[in-house]
Amino acid sequence: LSVSLDPYLLTIAISNNNKINRILSLCPGASSTGATPSEEMNGTGNLMDFLDEPFPDVGTYEDFHTIDWLREKSRDTDRHRKITTKSKESYWELIKSLLDAWSGWVVMLLIGMLTGTLAGVIDLAVDWMTDLKEGVCLSALYYSREQCCWTSNETTFDDRDKCPQWQKWAELMTGHSEGAGAYVLNYFLYVLWALLFSFLAVSLVRVFAPYACGSGIPEIKTILSGFIIRGYLGKWTLLIKTVTLVLAVSSGLSLGKEGPLVHVACCCGNLFCSLFSKYSKNEGKRREVLSAAAAAGVSVAFGAPIGGVLFSLEEVSYYFPLKTLWRSFFAALVAAFTLRAINPFGNSRLVLFYVEYHTPWYMAELVPFILLGVFGGLWGALFIRGNIAWCRRRKTTLLGKYPVLEVIVITGITAVLAFPNPYTRRSTSELISELFNDCGALESSQLCDYVNNPNMSRPVDDIPDRPAGPGVYSALWQLALALIFKIVITIFTFGMKIPSGLFIPSMAVGAIAGRIVGIAVEQMAYHHHDWIIFKNWCRPGADCVTPGLYAMVGAAACLGGVTRMTVSLVVIMFELTGGLEYIVPLMAAAVTSKWVADAFGKEGIYESHIQLNGYPYLDVRDEFTHRTLATDVMRPRRSEPPLAVLTQDSTTVEDVETLIKDTDYNGFPVVVSRESERLIGFVQRRELTVAIKTARQKQDGVVSSSVVYFTEDNPQVAEACDPQPLKLRRILNLSPFTVTDHTPMETVVDIFRKLGLRQCLVTRSGRLLGIITKKDVLRHMAQMMNQDPESIMFN
Amino acid sequence: LSVSLDPYLLTIAISNNNKINRILSLCPGASSTGATPSEEMNGTGNLMDFLDEPFPDVGTYEDFHTIDWLREKSRDTDRHRKITTKSKESYWELIKSLLDAWSGWVVMLLIGMLTGTLAGVIDLAVDWMTDLKEGVCLSALYYSREQCCWTSNETTFDDRDKCPQWQKWAELMTGHSEGAGAYVLNYFLYVLWALLFSFLAVSLVRVFAPYACGSGIPEIKTILSGFIIRGYLGKWTLLIKTVTLVLAVSSGLSLGKEGPLVHVACCCGNLFCSLFSKYSKNEGKRREVLSAAAAAGVSVAFGAPIGGVLFSLEEVSYYFPLKTLWRSFFAALVAAFTLRAINPFGNSRLVLFYVEYHTPWYMAELVPFILLGVFGGLWGALFIRGNIAWCRRRKTTLLGKYPVLEVIVITGITAVLAFPNPYTRRSTSELISELFNDCGALESSQLCDYVNNPNMSRPVDDIPDRPAGPGVYSALWQLALALIFKIVITIFTFGMKIPSGLFIPSMAVGAIAGRIVGIAVEQMAYHHHDWIIFKNWCRPGADCVTPGLYAMVGAAACLGGVTRMTVSLVVIMFELTGGLEYIVPLMAAAVTSKWVADAFGKEGIYESHIQLNGYPYLDVRDEFTHRTLATDVMRPRRSEPPLAVLTQDSTTVEDVETLIKDTDYNGFPVVVSRESERLIGFVQRRELTVAIKTARQKQDGVVSSSVVYFTEDNPQVAEACDPQPLKLRRILNLSPFTVTDHTPMETVVDIFRKLGLRQCLVTRSGRLLGIITKKDVLRHMAQMMNQDPESIMFN
Repeated sequence: LSVSLDPYLLTIAISNNNKINRILSLCPGASSTGATPSEEMNGTGNLMDFLDEPFPDVGTYEDFHTIDWLREKSRDTDRHRKITTKSKESYWELIKSLLDAWSGWVVMLLIGMLTGTLAGVIDLAVDWMTDLKEGVCLSALYYSREQCCWTSNETTFDDRDKCPQWQKWAELMTGHSEGAGAYVLNYFLYVLWALLFSFLAVSLVRVFAPYACGSGIPEIKTILSGFIIRGYLGKWTLLIKTVTLVLAVSSGLSLGKEGPLVHVACCCGNLFCSLFSKYSKNEGKRREVLSAAAAAGVSVAFGAPIGGVLFSLEEVSYYFPLKTLWRSFFAALVAAFTLRAINPFGNSRLVLFYVEYHTPWYMAELVPFILLGVFGGLWGALFIRGNIAWCRRRKTTLLGKYPVLEVIVITGITAVLAFPNPYTRRSTSELISELFNDCGALESSQLCDYVNNPNMSRPVDDIPDRPAGPGVYSALWQLALALIFKIVITIFTFGMKIPSGLFIPSMAVGAIAGRIVGIAVEQMAYHHHDWIIFKNWCRPGADCVTPGLYAMVGAAACLGGVTRMTVSLVVIMFELTGGLEYIVPLMAAAVTSKWVADAFGKEGIYESHIQLNGYPYLDVRDEFTHRTLATDVMRPRRSEPPLAVLTQDSTTVEDVETLIKDTDYNGFPVVVSRESERLIGFVQRRELTVAIKTARQKQDGVVSSSVVYFTEDNPQVAEACDPQPLKLRRILNLSPFTVTDHTPMETVVDIFRKLGLRQCLVTRSGRLLGIITKKDVLRHMAQMMNQDPESIMFN
Repeated sequence: LSVSLDPYLLTIAISNNNKINRILSLCPGASSTGATPSEEMNGTGNLMDFLDEPFPDVGTYEDFHTIDWLREKSRDTDRHRKITTKSKESYWELIKSLLDAWSGWVVMLLIGMLTGTLAGVIDLAVDWMTDLKEGVCLSALYYSREQCCWTSNETTFDDRDKCPQWQKWAELMTGHSEGAGAYVLNYFLYVLWALLFSFLAVSLVRVFAPYACGSGIPEIKTILSGFIIRGYLGKWTLLIKTVTLVLAVSSGLSLGKEGPLVHVACCCGNLFCSLFSKYSKNEGKRREVLSAAAAAGVSVAFGAPIGGVLFSLEEVSYYFPLKTLWRSFFAALVAAFTLRAINPFGNSRLVLFYVEYHTPWYMAELVPFILLGVFGGLWGALFIRGNIAWCRRRKTTLLGKYPVLEVIVITGITAVLAFPNPYTRRSTSELISELFNDCGALESSQLCDYVNNPNMSRPVDDIPDRPAGPGVYSALWQLALALIFKIVITIFTFGMKIPSGLFIPSMAVGAIAGRIVGIAVEQMAYHHHDWIIFKNWCRPGADCVTPGLYAMVGAAACLGGVTRMTVSLVVIMFELTGGLEYIVPLMAAAVTSKWVADAFGKEGIYESHIQLNGYPYLDVRDEFTHRTLATDVMRPRRSEPPLAVLTQDSTTVEDVETLIKDTDYNGFPVVVSRESERLIGFVQRRELTVAIKTARQKQDGVVSSSVVYFTEDNPQVAEACDPQPLKLRRILNLSPFTVTDHTPMETVVDIFRKLGLRQCLVTRSGRLLGIITKKDVLRHMAQMMNQDPESIMFN
């Protein structure tokens, strides 16, 4: 047995028994008795004064860094504690504390009102500009076609679709509304307007707010999970995204406004956060507000407040305490009611697609519903693969260099192909609305062109009059073409440098497929009413089945396949129909679609884009099931240099500065001594830099050879010994998060996820071994996932 | 400087530098070279064989103990990993793994179906037995009055309330249906039936299933938060609770079936858990199923599946991953549809109180709505204080000794006071239903007795015919008496030894108050239609206001005051009315009621009962805002004896046995040595006991003086040295959760809450200082709360 009597080891041995109450004077040759007590006190006093001043910017994070949720929470508790203590001092402070307590509700109210207003303005502007591509209202240029015809007295009920005040461009310019020339002119102007709108949109995005492009939901998910992207939710982004969203949607591209509306709502949330220091100075609290804002965004996108809250809970948010649930609900309701007050659809309805069905569904219909679910799942998988491949191509090839050209080309193709087909020419929302609709008696749509002959003598078994007319058959062909067109073009559209949501295009794909299936089932039921499964389906005067319901089920399935939403999807659809009646078909399709899509890859479109962009997002839904330990993930690895640590009482200012310069770590563990490696705390790089800089400027005697102290007791400094020590215990985090090296990674992942850690230190029986950061965890998870892709299939 | 050259300290000092690869032979006087290598291997082999056998019962918990969520989760991941690995071996294993993956959905389906069926049966039985108190159906004894009259052909529409087949007891027995004699006889029999039902209920509970009493929600909350109460969700409890719930509700006591239905649903969940080892053997997974079952319970109680899921999320559950959200939704829907298939209310409606209103509400009406909110909050605070005081009295005084007598007396009082008033005589659900209802043209209720004279000449300003008739005025008096009666009797009823929910009584109190306010506002608007605020309220042919809406708002306010539900409350009410139209009034009332009630105490009735019963429940909603540190909470305190620890290689079997006998801790930290106190792991008491017992029986050479080893390397044992060491590393948890002594308690509370820990060790620079258990945290939180009750007001 060789016992190395190293003095360091002895020190530890002692410190194990007796707490370190006295620190050895580190100034060799000087006796500590040289300083008089008063001088010592003075020195300490100075030290304390300096340390009591808060460092500027402490608690802020740098761009593209991860926040520490635990620290944010603890800072908020401190703030709250201070206010509570103060509130007992005077009435003014009491009022201030009450205002502080209410500020959360005020922010929600403001967010709701602004989001609702913006959504209303966007809806109105999109309506007007979409119609502008085809014609103009002579009585008032700012009227959309519907408003134009509605206010005109000359419109009769029978001839609703034609109103003299509304003129197509060809009619206005040449006087002829029919004929090849008029058609070509209209076609040309349609394409021209589309190109103009999309060019304007992409230019505005490029020049003023590059963050305004895309749907924004992947980035918002990442931000909410605790990442900093400065400017992503800024005022400028808000303004440009709102304007360009109108332009992009109006240009007729295959994109929707729902995702971007969530981004707009979050920008509003961020805007109002800056009014209250409670939210602006705390990244954790700010994210609570943003979660609620996301709920308000979906609430106005669909007119579904409950669905919005559940969407925020299920899809977007990371940390969602109950308090936020309640406030989100409030914000979502305020937004919905503000939108209703603006009444952009002119029907006093909150919802985007209001439907009412009158026929119940039959058990056997579950078969086509489930088939639609399968279709939705396949579409979801295809879309995600195709879109991600295309986006990767955009990132890696020359394509990405010409975003404006790309938008122009895609818009041109879309407009040229869309115009001839009446189902793609109009706006996608209108298309979905028509596909969802039940054919009432007054419906003028081509889809409702059934042979309805009331004088026809009824057969004995009372079949209703629902044979399809020629209009339905031609509509079917056009719909089939529209389906193929939408499927292909949407893959290339999503991800361009303009605001683009994919709720509406996905729903459109599903709605078209659903309506086609619905009509097919209906006609089968009509023509084969004597088959056993169709028995009793068709009754006189009523529909056999509701093709609109199929469209809705298809839309839900496709949306579910792309986004992998479940509960929120069904609840949004429930709010659209307003009846529990149709929840079973919707759920059957949503479940099937999710299962089918999951078989081709666990990730929804948002997670895929997060991964594509390499954001540090720790998904709550990924289950980590591998048998690795913390020791396999921690750094330094075996081949790497040892961990960069500070010692509690033997590092000089110069050492620290060198360490800061040479490394780019976010923080450094502080140990008792380099040999014992017993952890006492963790210090943030940013705070260390600021502290040393401030000390060098303000505190006398701090030079490069000053020793940096992290100990509890004041170091005893001899007068003769020149370099004044720098005490930095104040910035030392005394409760760093630690796990042992034997901790299974599944537990570590769980801890990171639930506590929102930034990093975690790894120890073995008290000795510091290494560090695991959030990025290490993510990297490890990605490695494991690629290594064994099968294991995730059965989750 | 005095350096104590204790050999122990040197050992540590060495182990800091070189890992402990060799353990000193602990058998004095024997050289380790005496044993041949093969013999050594043999010894090791035996050791390993023994250790590879799983200990029986490892992973189960004792009654009234807290589970360790992290450990349960990690065990499930292990299980899952095993199945995934095996599934690659053969098709049979693949099928088994698929079945395992699907078992969650199967369990949900079964729970939904059984819960729905039980709810339907309970509804039918309650209907029949409630009516049995007043009379009997002659055509079929098992018909309730409604069914009896509905099936009878002799009932005319005008005279719906009288049908010859249905006879009151007096009529049946004496032939006279009118007169004082008949009234007294009916009165007498009503009281008698009530006493009989409640006596049966309390006897069954007392004899067969003591856990079947009460609402069950406080206990379910505690169980879901990770506590073990054996038998609380057992088959016997399920059976008895279902039967006694029918009896208790039928007896006319002021209680509801909603809370107990949640308990029944959870019992169903537990029942089906036992079918699958995935759930039965893992307390964490079991709780996921129970959360979903709770959602199914509320879903059938109100016919509100979405509200049920949100109730489970907001009010009941502790750990609610997204996967559970989706499954809960599925279970809730299946349950709702099963109930609808049974159709106990005979109206094809899912919901308990189906209402449809036709009049919009006016902004000025928010004033009475908010007043109702204040009333609800006050009622909530009064109820909680009164009920808790009474329950505490029951616990501490003689009262608790006679539960049967108590139930009999309360039933007697209730029945005697309830019979004379038509609004309390009928079942509470019916009362609420009538109060919610709008007065249609065909309504025969006394509450709709308005003076409707179509021949009355209308005044110029077109006031509708809504002056209250005499029926309304007498109804108002009766309602006022019923309100006082309900308020008082509910306080004494909740908590008796029979199944009792308080949703329905709370809603009844609110509905009565709301209807009274509603009629008052209506009459004011009618009689003062020239006042500015009432301008344009009353239009011809329509109601001025909807008194039923006031009843609904009042019900929501009172329920919110008692339970402090927020989102789920509004969503349940939204599902009842089916329109977003009335969400603002409901929300205004719910928010006001919560704020008012919170001013008198943060806790809802369930949390109060949890506290009264002393369950270890760590509320997610309580924010801990005090400035204490882990060191203030950890044990041992300064005055207490040191922490009971094991050392990794110097404790004998006898020492361990003594420790187990002398203490009742759930586990013991294992340290390197008693002097260095460096933590290496944590061992569970239960596993230690089992391991030592098994080793003593099965492993040769393990005697009292054998040394227990927790080290990684096999101890080298000399042949000459008799006691064979016992290696127990297998049961050592190498990743115990640690925090430093400087960690703020708010962080510790957060960690306990989010990770579901059972205990947490406290260290300072690697040295073990103490331990914090969940109970220590709870005790500390309670202390802090009492010390400074004001600070929680502003949360």
